[in-house]
Amino acid sequence: MVATTVGLGYISGLVTQTSVDTWYPTLNKPSFTPPNAAFPIAWSTLYVLMGIAAGLVWSRLDMQREEVRKGLTFFAIQFALNMLWSYLFFGLQNPMLALVEIIILWLMIYETWFLFKKVHKIAGWLMVPYLLWVTYALALNAGIWYLNR
Amino acid sequence: MVATTVGLGYISGLVTQTSVDTWYPTLNKPSFTPPNAAFPIAWSTLYVLMGIAAGLVWSRLDMQREEVRKGLTFFAIQFALNMLWSYLFFGLQNPMLALVEIIILWLMIYETWFLFKKVHKIAGWLMVPYLLWVTYALALNAGIWYLNR
Repeated sequence: MVATTVGLGYISGLVTQTSVDTWYPTLNKPSFTPPNAAFPIAWSTLYVLMGIAAGLVWSRLDMQREEVRKGLTFFAIQFALNMLWSYLFFGLQNPMLALVEIIILWLMIYETWFLFKKVHKIAGWLMVPYLLWVTYALALNAGIWYLNR
Repeated sequence: MVATTVGLGYISGLVTQTSVDTWYPTLNKPSFTPPNAAFPIAWSTLYVLMGIAAGLVWSRLDMQREEVRKGLTFFAIQFALNMLWSYLFFGLQNPMLALVEIIILWLMIYETWFLFKKVHKIAGWLMVPYLLWVTYALALNAGIWYLNR
């Protein structure tokens, strides 16, 4: 799963990098669009926080085997969908398809949060900033789709 | 610590974003420079892995209080230095200062790895890709400094 995710991410990245620099600046943006610099900083922090959450849940494997496995499976799925979103939005330059996908991503993060908090209270809380940020990203994606349709 | 880190990161980011797009492409690069797309993909994965490692170590707090606290302190220090590097390299456009700092960063990651592996074997292994990547980044920074001095 990790290998697939990284591989998928790498291919996506190769396709998408130019698009970030050339296509994205030309789009009409909603008023609540943050400065570009906010994205790498937010994501660095959120990736570390979601990782810590997954580590705390993993540590309960021997106590709640089924719940932990299910939680970590959903964690892997949401991470793969997170990487896929970049490919759909920037690689395919398709905000509508990306919008459909980010709704599924949001639901998978919600499910991961729901499973994590049953296993480890702090792990649940550590997923909250991520869920809030993706809620915001979803609104941003919707705004960009609407203003450029 | 987290708030300071995020705040520092945010200010750094505001300063550095333009630099990534305009200054970095003009630099002479060593032959082993990866495509730009490699950076966000590598970092996303490494942030999640280091987070999982920190979560696993955190889970041992009640068993090895002192070692865990020390490990997580070094983890916070290395993460702050990781954010600071972007500011020195891109914000100040100073590869020499960034090179000095990345050597300290490397040593802090090494110390974090050393402390983590004593607390939790898997957590130690999860820090290895990060240590290898920063070794590579150090060489890249040195090459860029040398070719543009």
